[in-house]
Amino acid sequence: MVSAPHSPATPSTLSAYRSPCQPTGLARMFHPRSIALVGVSSRPESLNARPLRFLLEHGFGGGIFPVNPNHNELFGVRCYPSLADIPEPVDLVLVLVPAAGTIEVIRQAGAIGAHTAVVFSSGFAETGAEGTRLQEELREVARATGVRVVGPNCQGLVYAPTGMAATFTAAAARPFRGHGGVAYVGQSGAVGGSILDMAREMGLRLTAWASTGNQADLDLVDVASALVSDEEVDVLMLYAESIRDGEAYIRLAEQAMLTGKRLVVLRSGKSAAGQRAVTSHTGAMLGDQLAFELASRRYGVILVADVDELLAVSATLQTSPPPAGPRIGVITTSGGAGSLAADHLAGHGLDLPTLAADTQDRLAPLIPDFGALGNPVDVTAQLFNQDELAGALGKVCGTVADDDQIDAIAIVLTMVTGELGARLAADIVATARESTKPVLVAWLAGPGQTQDGRAIFREAGIPVFPSVGALARTAARCGSAVTVPRPDRSDSIVDPAETVELLRGCAAGELRPEAVLTALGVPQPENRLVRTAEEAARAAAELDGELAMKIAASGLEHKSDIGGVRLAVPGARATEVFGELTELAARHGVTDLHGVLLQRMLPEGVELIVGATCAADGYPPIITIGFGGVTTELYRDVTSELAPVRPWQVRDMLRRLRGWPLLSGFRGNAPCDVDAVATVVTRLSTAVAPLAGHPFELEINPLIVAAEGGGACAADVLISGMRQPK
Amino acid sequence: MVSAPHSPATPSTLSAYRSPCQPTGLARMFHPRSIALVGVSSRPESLNARPLRFLLEHGFGGGIFPVNPNHNELFGVRCYPSLADIPEPVDLVLVLVPAAGTIEVIRQAGAIGAHTAVVFSSGFAETGAEGTRLQEELREVARATGVRVVGPNCQGLVYAPTGMAATFTAAAARPFRGHGGVAYVGQSGAVGGSILDMAREMGLRLTAWASTGNQADLDLVDVASALVSDEEVDVLMLYAESIRDGEAYIRLAEQAMLTGKRLVVLRSGKSAAGQRAVTSHTGAMLGDQLAFELASRRYGVILVADVDELLAVSATLQTSPPPAGPRIGVITTSGGAGSLAADHLAGHGLDLPTLAADTQDRLAPLIPDFGALGNPVDVTAQLFNQDELAGALGKVCGTVADDDQIDAIAIVLTMVTGELGARLAADIVATARESTKPVLVAWLAGPGQTQDGRAIFREAGIPVFPSVGALARTAARCGSAVTVPRPDRSDSIVDPAETVELLRGCAAGELRPEAVLTALGVPQPENRLVRTAEEAARAAAELDGELAMKIAASGLEHKSDIGGVRLAVPGARATEVFGELTELAARHGVTDLHGVLLQRMLPEGVELIVGATCAADGYPPIITIGFGGVTTELYRDVTSELAPVRPWQVRDMLRRLRGWPLLSGFRGNAPCDVDAVATVVTRLSTAVAPLAGHPFELEINPLIVAAEGGGACAADVLISGMRQPK
Repeated sequence: MVSAPHSPATPSTLSAYRSPCQPTGLARMFHPRSIALVGVSSRPESLNARPLRFLLEHGFGGGIFPVNPNHNELFGVRCYPSLADIPEPVDLVLVLVPAAGTIEVIRQAGAIGAHTAVVFSSGFAETGAEGTRLQEELREVARATGVRVVGPNCQGLVYAPTGMAATFTAAAARPFRGHGGVAYVGQSGAVGGSILDMAREMGLRLTAWASTGNQADLDLVDVASALVSDEEVDVLMLYAESIRDGEAYIRLAEQAMLTGKRLVVLRSGKSAAGQRAVTSHTGAMLGDQLAFELASRRYGVILVADVDELLAVSATLQTSPPPAGPRIGVITTSGGAGSLAADHLAGHGLDLPTLAADTQDRLAPLIPDFGALGNPVDVTAQLFNQDELAGALGKVCGTVADDDQIDAIAIVLTMVTGELGARLAADIVATARESTKPVLVAWLAGPGQTQDGRAIFREAGIPVFPSVGALARTAARCGSAVTVPRPDRSDSIVDPAETVELLRGCAAGELRPEAVLTALGVPQPENRLVRTAEEAARAAAELDGELAMKIAASGLEHKSDIGGVRLAVPGARATEVFGELTELAARHGVTDLHGVLLQRMLPEGVELIVGATCAADGYPPIITIGFGGVTTELYRDVTSELAPVRPWQVRDMLRRLRGWPLLSGFRGNAPCDVDAVATVVTRLSTAVAPLAGHPFELEINPLIVAAEGGGACAADVLISGMRQPK
Repeated sequence: MVSAPHSPATPSTLSAYRSPCQPTGLARMFHPRSIALVGVSSRPESLNARPLRFLLEHGFGGGIFPVNPNHNELFGVRCYPSLADIPEPVDLVLVLVPAAGTIEVIRQAGAIGAHTAVVFSSGFAETGAEGTRLQEELREVARATGVRVVGPNCQGLVYAPTGMAATFTAAAARPFRGHGGVAYVGQSGAVGGSILDMAREMGLRLTAWASTGNQADLDLVDVASALVSDEEVDVLMLYAESIRDGEAYIRLAEQAMLTGKRLVVLRSGKSAAGQRAVTSHTGAMLGDQLAFELASRRYGVILVADVDELLAVSATLQTSPPPAGPRIGVITTSGGAGSLAADHLAGHGLDLPTLAADTQDRLAPLIPDFGALGNPVDVTAQLFNQDELAGALGKVCGTVADDDQIDAIAIVLTMVTGELGARLAADIVATARESTKPVLVAWLAGPGQTQDGRAIFREAGIPVFPSVGALARTAARCGSAVTVPRPDRSDSIVDPAETVELLRGCAAGELRPEAVLTALGVPQPENRLVRTAEEAARAAAELDGELAMKIAASGLEHKSDIGGVRLAVPGARATEVFGELTELAARHGVTDLHGVLLQRMLPEGVELIVGATCAADGYPPIITIGFGGVTTELYRDVTSELAPVRPWQVRDMLRRLRGWPLLSGFRGNAPCDVDAVATVVTRLSTAVAPLAGHPFELEINPLIVAAEGGGACAADVLISGMRQPK
């Protein structure tokens, strides 16, 4: 898939090129030694002239080769009749011709050994069936030639350190203001343009930017993967409308986590999937949004809900590491604003601990008598009317930041304007530079009288929040990156191929689910499958005691709804009940009857539902635990993790359930055997973990949990959906 | 409490005064015919010079009388040695002297018949015990003289139509930009200053503004009451740190509702009370935040969570009525941004219905082929590259606004900048002016390249949201004012005084709770209170059948925890169980044993908890309904309303419970007697409704609800806390 190696570039072309070494693989798309532009317009105001003009204006240092048979020169740069006529190797081809002509350009790009092409043209899948066909053709020619294609219908690539503005977004028309280690990749060109523009105006200095459009070949995860390993990139913003391959997303997130980069992701299109809350008992149909969220949490990805949060979180991480914990020190010029900030921070699960006595002692001389020293620290507006206290706010902020009880500081300014506002801004910036803890600033004043102060914050790359709510949301999001334990990798006790075969066989009706549980090491009550009344009598005698008896048939998901489950049957009635159940099955037209299952009755216990579900989206199976009965159905008291989970994670999941007291010893009841639940779920999850991409559903309902030491036992299980592996 | 009527003002002073008629009562504070300022500084930059300077700069048309014995004239205005020397009547006195001198000034203000005084000075309760004493003295002199006092430690009053800038907030230094019918009242001066400033910069033209500070006499509800009847005020913003008197708040909210004014309230300090979620089963200790929220909902008050929301909601209501329903039409220049907007709007419970076929037909010629006609309507950025389609966005917006399916439109602009952005802004403003439906605009572009467009929106008073999340929050808040039915007033079947007496007697142990239920008309199982074994035997014979037997004692709140409740006791065992229970009571040191209560056992049913609780905060009692047992304790599945509730409201409360299916016929069970629950709760709530201000708790637990037609019966009740009425 990778193009043939280039012949060495001539020094003349590359002398101005600043990248220290030439990256390999996908990363090359942001580090081309030279760029060809096919279909450049000679009209300066044309969209198709923009990429050439932007490359020149931003001073791209590599080779620039416009291709246009009607011109010898465009915007002062020599022009070539075709790609084949360019005398030097070309890494990146920008395709500015109409949709119909793009296929041929990619073919020619392949012929000259180009690595990447960006197809800007629209007129593909977004326009209907004919366009979709053309897009499919584009994908095929990319595969055939080995040229990796960004687009079509996209806005291109930017890499600020080298001035590589290979884009036609209007937002790139202004000079870049340096580069702060933050990169952006998104599908939508319009949202991308907004982000590029808004980032600049808030002091977020983007290092790289990409709009992936229709994603015929490379998608946003591919392009992000090219950036996550870039040494100039520390924080990577993604705007995703869809994630094509969960496995690739997890690889990206894992690489970011392992290399200390921060991934901040905004995903849209959730509301269409908002129905998921009402689908299934244990998440069987929760769909890819849940798997995406679980994977993001596991790998420390910061999920945000809006464009302003995406920018604010990234800007905060541009200047400081994420807070080490949830403890925020609030400094404010107004008791009222401090109280509002406390409400919002607490509402997002953050703590406002009282400051250490020592800290308060050091604050006391800096703050008027009627201010507050606890947390929030209210310096009062009066502070700024007393000349001898000028400069005190910077000291206050520094003192609070030094408190060991505090992980981040939030400063809430009210009507501090003009020159005084600018002086405070400078003090706060100085404090932020000296501290390793994040400093977040909200300024409740119109921009009109606070322009100078805001410029100082912008220059320092510190975002200024327009409200305490926005500040609190960002503080909480930044904190969500913290305390991510490195995911465990654990070996299954079952061979993945064998697990697939077990689930497939069971879903096809060739294998009983009890056999699958046995193979996976999940305890279940002793049982017998019987096909005749005589077998039923013999099995009842062997099992000895009260029985559960159930119709055993594949494809009968709700056998209890038709009365196909009988509990506490005395052994002596086994043959009689056998007759009733087979007759019932016949009456309901059950065709693939396996027989009747006899189980030894389990003693009463707390009933859980444990599910494992997997879709074709590339994510590992989702493990879901909930309480049986009314609570799951009415109160949605379920919790999920991606497989595999380790015992400590299962215990953590159980504690997250609101019904946890039912397991831990509610109202004087004995605590339940949580360790046994952890063992069962760990085994199940480990067995199915390698099955990413194989759609199936497995639901243990109920798992009956006895008191401590008494074990956990699967009283019933349902398996469906597994198809023949691809 | 109201000062003596003034002698008629001389025409010379009042000729420039623009108010058509002189309001009476509290409303006079915003319509003074003349203002005296005591303690004005001669230094222009002094805080104490600001009110005089501001009054002059904003062109206040009434009399202005500075008082300062050291000057004959200040800032060009004649100055008087004392209040008594002013030759004309004075309505409003601004008190700029230090704290210690304020009492005497109020006394003098009373002597000359002033109606209101604003005490700006700090140094009162915010500084400690001595200041608290002084504040108490200030309150007393206000009561004694009849001068109503705003402050101390406040920032004063503004009434823009008359240029009455009786304040020293720096935010009043700039000219007012007209007045749009929106007023603001808040405690915090700093937050108030921020709001005054931010309002101006976003195009919200405040008509009136007040900061009430320490509220020694008048609180923010009093001051708001002065504005809610003002004919220039349509929308009233409140920023509240505390609400002193729930009853006064309800009166204000009701008056706003009845006169078609909108109340928008931001309340801070909720997090301290955030513990309420874990207090009591049925809201017994939920405290005033819950009563405040319930009262606000009942009277159509819009509650917001942040300063930016307070401003944005008020600005939206400044230009249009609230949306008539939750159906939003989204118009966007970007499919991605439209998808994000849909997520946020849906997340706030708003609908995005597909537009009518007719609307789509009319949109089709205006929008490029690859745009979208449904909802969101994606006009695509391309629209703006096609000259023949210029002006189309305004038409698109107008067409969507005309759709009967749509209650409000939301426009999400991305990188539409410069002159084009300004043209679009003008088109949107024109659409908004023609439509009776609210128009909300989010613009995802930095202000730098969109200044002209933003100025057009500002001029029109249309707020521009910085994110789709902020737009969606405001759309949802504005919508929350809709469909507020006028609260029912209903008569109790019990005399309020008698109810108080019943509850007091029961709490004091003088009366059995069963007697209270009987008096309130709540059904309960037939029962007998017995004191001897013989009485127990006789009662058992009379009740005939299985019995519930309980220790009856006041002050024993958890009798079942000590085994003091026995269920399903056969009548023959009544004397034996009587002995066991009395012995148990003795063993647990129960001193005020009333005896043992025998009840006829109720058949099984769905168990509810019904509570009525009241605090001393002035709000009516809170009625709370939840399910008995685990669900209430673990899942907090409870719902509350203020008393009184009518049967339709009770049914609505029951439907809001997540466990509602348990009542409506879950898994094939028979539906329960919801009408009987409605009757019980209506009777109880109507009886206790007049008891606002009398702290008590009453909890029926359980109320056993039979199948339809079978009734609802209080199996147990607990009453506590009622003290002797004041």
